[in-house]
Amino acid sequence: MSEQKKMVEEITSRDTDFARWYTDVVKKTELVDYSSVKGCMVIRPYGYAIWENIQKDLDARFKATGHENVYMPMFIPESLLQKEKDHVEGFAPEVAWVTHGGGEKLAERLCVRPTSETLFCEHYAKIINSYRDLPKLYNQWCSVVRWEKTTRPFLRSAEFLWQEGHTMHETAEEAKAETLRMLEVYRDFYKETLAIPVVWGQKTEKEKFAGAEATYTVEPMMHNGVALQGGTSHYFGDGFARAFNIRFSGRDNTLQYPHQTSWGVSTRMIGAIIMTHGDDSGLVLPPRVAPIQAVIVPIAMHKGGVLEKAEEVAASLKERFRIKLDATDNSPGWKFSEYEMKGVPLRIELGPRDIEQGVCVLVRRDTGEKTTVSLEGLADTVAEMLDNIHDSLYNRALENLKNRTYTAHDYDEFLAIAKEKSGYINAMWCGDEACETKIKEDTGGVKSRCIPFDEEQISDVCVVCGKPAKHHVVFGRQY
Amino acid sequence: MSEQKKMVEEITSRDTDFARWYTDVVKKTELVDYSSVKGCMVIRPYGYAIWENIQKDLDARFKATGHENVYMPMFIPESLLQKEKDHVEGFAPEVAWVTHGGGEKLAERLCVRPTSETLFCEHYAKIINSYRDLPKLYNQWCSVVRWEKTTRPFLRSAEFLWQEGHTMHETAEEAKAETLRMLEVYRDFYKETLAIPVVWGQKTEKEKFAGAEATYTVEPMMHNGVALQGGTSHYFGDGFARAFNIRFSGRDNTLQYPHQTSWGVSTRMIGAIIMTHGDDSGLVLPPRVAPIQAVIVPIAMHKGGVLEKAEEVAASLKERFRIKLDATDNSPGWKFSEYEMKGVPLRIELGPRDIEQGVCVLVRRDTGEKTTVSLEGLADTVAEMLDNIHDSLYNRALENLKNRTYTAHDYDEFLAIAKEKSGYINAMWCGDEACETKIKEDTGGVKSRCIPFDEEQISDVCVVCGKPAKHHVVFGRQY
Repeated sequence: MSEQKKMVEEITSRDTDFARWYTDVVKKTELVDYSSVKGCMVIRPYGYAIWENIQKDLDARFKATGHENVYMPMFIPESLLQKEKDHVEGFAPEVAWVTHGGGEKLAERLCVRPTSETLFCEHYAKIINSYRDLPKLYNQWCSVVRWEKTTRPFLRSAEFLWQEGHTMHETAEEAKAETLRMLEVYRDFYKETLAIPVVWGQKTEKEKFAGAEATYTVEPMMHNGVALQGGTSHYFGDGFARAFNIRFSGRDNTLQYPHQTSWGVSTRMIGAIIMTHGDDSGLVLPPRVAPIQAVIVPIAMHKGGVLEKAEEVAASLKERFRIKLDATDNSPGWKFSEYEMKGVPLRIELGPRDIEQGVCVLVRRDTGEKTTVSLEGLADTVAEMLDNIHDSLYNRALENLKNRTYTAHDYDEFLAIAKEKSGYINAMWCGDEACETKIKEDTGGVKSRCIPFDEEQISDVCVVCGKPAKHHVVFGRQY
Repeated sequence: MSEQKKMVEEITSRDTDFARWYTDVVKKTELVDYSSVKGCMVIRPYGYAIWENIQKDLDARFKATGHENVYMPMFIPESLLQKEKDHVEGFAPEVAWVTHGGGEKLAERLCVRPTSETLFCEHYAKIINSYRDLPKLYNQWCSVVRWEKTTRPFLRSAEFLWQEGHTMHETAEEAKAETLRMLEVYRDFYKETLAIPVVWGQKTEKEKFAGAEATYTVEPMMHNGVALQGGTSHYFGDGFARAFNIRFSGRDNTLQYPHQTSWGVSTRMIGAIIMTHGDDSGLVLPPRVAPIQAVIVPIAMHKGGVLEKAEEVAASLKERFRIKLDATDNSPGWKFSEYEMKGVPLRIELGPRDIEQGVCVLVRRDTGEKTTVSLEGLADTVAEMLDNIHDSLYNRALENLKNRTYTAHDYDEFLAIAKEKSGYINAMWCGDEACETKIKEDTGGVKSRCIPFDEEQISDVCVVCGKPAKHHVVFGRQY
């Protein structure tokens, strides 16, 4: 009964109010629930299953590139957090502090990790002695806490789940190569697993990570033209190594500082999936992370043999796919709406006449297209269709990204685009932080996303100040 | 170079000092490192890989029994923790409190979860409305914090990793069945995956979980005769449901309280593995969770064809097993000691003469036994030998458990055993908490482990007070 209360019509349309549409979707599809701790969310089974599929895929990619998982404490003593000056300045304002434990006031307060560079460095200082100990390629899956004022499920929350890679290398070149290698892992994961195209490149000085020498980013664009910082990879040089006195004896027997990277992606990716692919009927999940890849809906289930055949079909598909057979007594129409809202990529309808003819009906979530196909070789047909859905989702998102990407040749044009359109703006920039700040102020929030890897020469001068341009920058509003 | 510093001889022998042996093993085999947060540990790659194998196996068992994973916030507001009286009394003394966040003092302090009953109940109150919403079978993998005074890696630490299942059922019978089903999952996992036999049964009132109606436990015995509480499963009745006002409309349309369970195991299981199977040479890992199931050590590696053949053998085994080929320039003797210390179940030696003859030498970690076997069908031979090692580890531990299990018919006998022997003591008990307390005081720490499922009638009277006996109880010291 309670399940039947859910009505697809309750979802606000994207064009009416995108923010409200998002909140409706995450609540009504039971991805999350709110908790009594402000800004902390409950990730419900359907949401967590997406995260598990993301984790499994990414973890395999990390291991294939030589990384090992570890687990660091969730607390950082205040004195440890303060060891690297830029880092503590960046994070101290947004941490949560533990001051009491076991009924007593602590001698030193502990912050709940907002990120774990300091903990990794403390450990690396103990275990790195020789060039033979390098590289160290560690990753950690955990939750972190950043005390945000305004929070939204998946996009920005006081606590979130993520992975953080932390690596140490003999040379700067190796560390730089690692930084870019992991960014490429993210870019490929977004494309091949989430069906999401990204703009990628280097963050400006103003936007880089607290304590990093260089930060690289992948920036998917949401359906409404707003950017989501989708994943970052940082090159630290030897700054932390010096602050934490991590040294190794090199091949030439001199003591040297190793070179460091870190890189991370989080449950925010689930927000990216929702806002890239979702539509007015609810979620549209990319097949490679969908908790249910295909749902089987029996038609006229009371008729002899229908349920048995549906079970047989389900069993034959379960080896290769994540399949759900819905044999509840809800009507087929109700089921169609329910799984449409939940974004299940493929629906398989099976009725008495289909069974007679040895066929079933496949309905794609992305296009609504119906196809009658033979039950023979169904697994191969399903595999092919799921791949098609993946490609079509990617292409649709890529088209949106292209359609919403503009080029500004002068500042009037820039301001006009920023005011009238929602999307990315390509423009030239002199390298001066003041011009970034001016853009942000004049537009009420447009910021540099990145200096893209494939820079174009739009003009010779900075779009803001007219001084000689140093870089092509992609600008945009962000979540 | 730094790796070569590790010497097997540095491990204290078990008979000399078991506690010291344990600490030596966890440090020297690089399972953990200490951190600057008292009582919190760094789980290093070799230790974390064991945990990943444990997780993968258990998670599949949970899903096969119908459970879904979720993620709850890591913080519990003080008012929420206080909703169930017994529960807060049990946990409040050992929690860590967050009092400040984002630069401000919080209106209400938050504890870092020591366990998540209260959070699950808050959520269940919102999502359970009808008998159709039941059962809810949720599990969570996360870290929890209990501010312990005395800590030891894996056995007792301020922060540890675990899973906590929390389920809600329509009837008491269903919830009781779930409680026992999950205990059986743990017992079977200990036996079939960790090769560890357990004593199992119900905790006495004194030893049950804060807020539970009944607690069940699996209690493996460590090599030295000391118990480790290896996993618990709790039946809550409807106590939390009443405290949190979780109600559903039943089949008869009346409002009812659901019946609840919770169950958990933690990284403490890695401590159980170490202390059950380890020996004076270091770790002995059960094959089904060993990060490396077999290590290939090439002999006379400089000779033509040896390394190539070793790589070929490694490649042929990697599909079915977790294999490491050690082709470093350390000596074979050094490698033998290293992987022996690290507890790798099987060593595969491959030299020029072996290759000529189409054979290799298999050396078992548990017995040291060497066998020359054909390279043809090697994967099947390895599979069979790993199964043999598993069985032999289990049987060795079972024999230790039997050898160290005693029966006390009267209190003098009980005290004599408690003084002279280390192990489990079977005895009769009247059901009075005072007698448990007396035993603990008189023996300096022997406590009831459980009322075993297969109770025996050792005598008619309580071993302490001589009043009529109610139960057979297994007693023992614990970690």
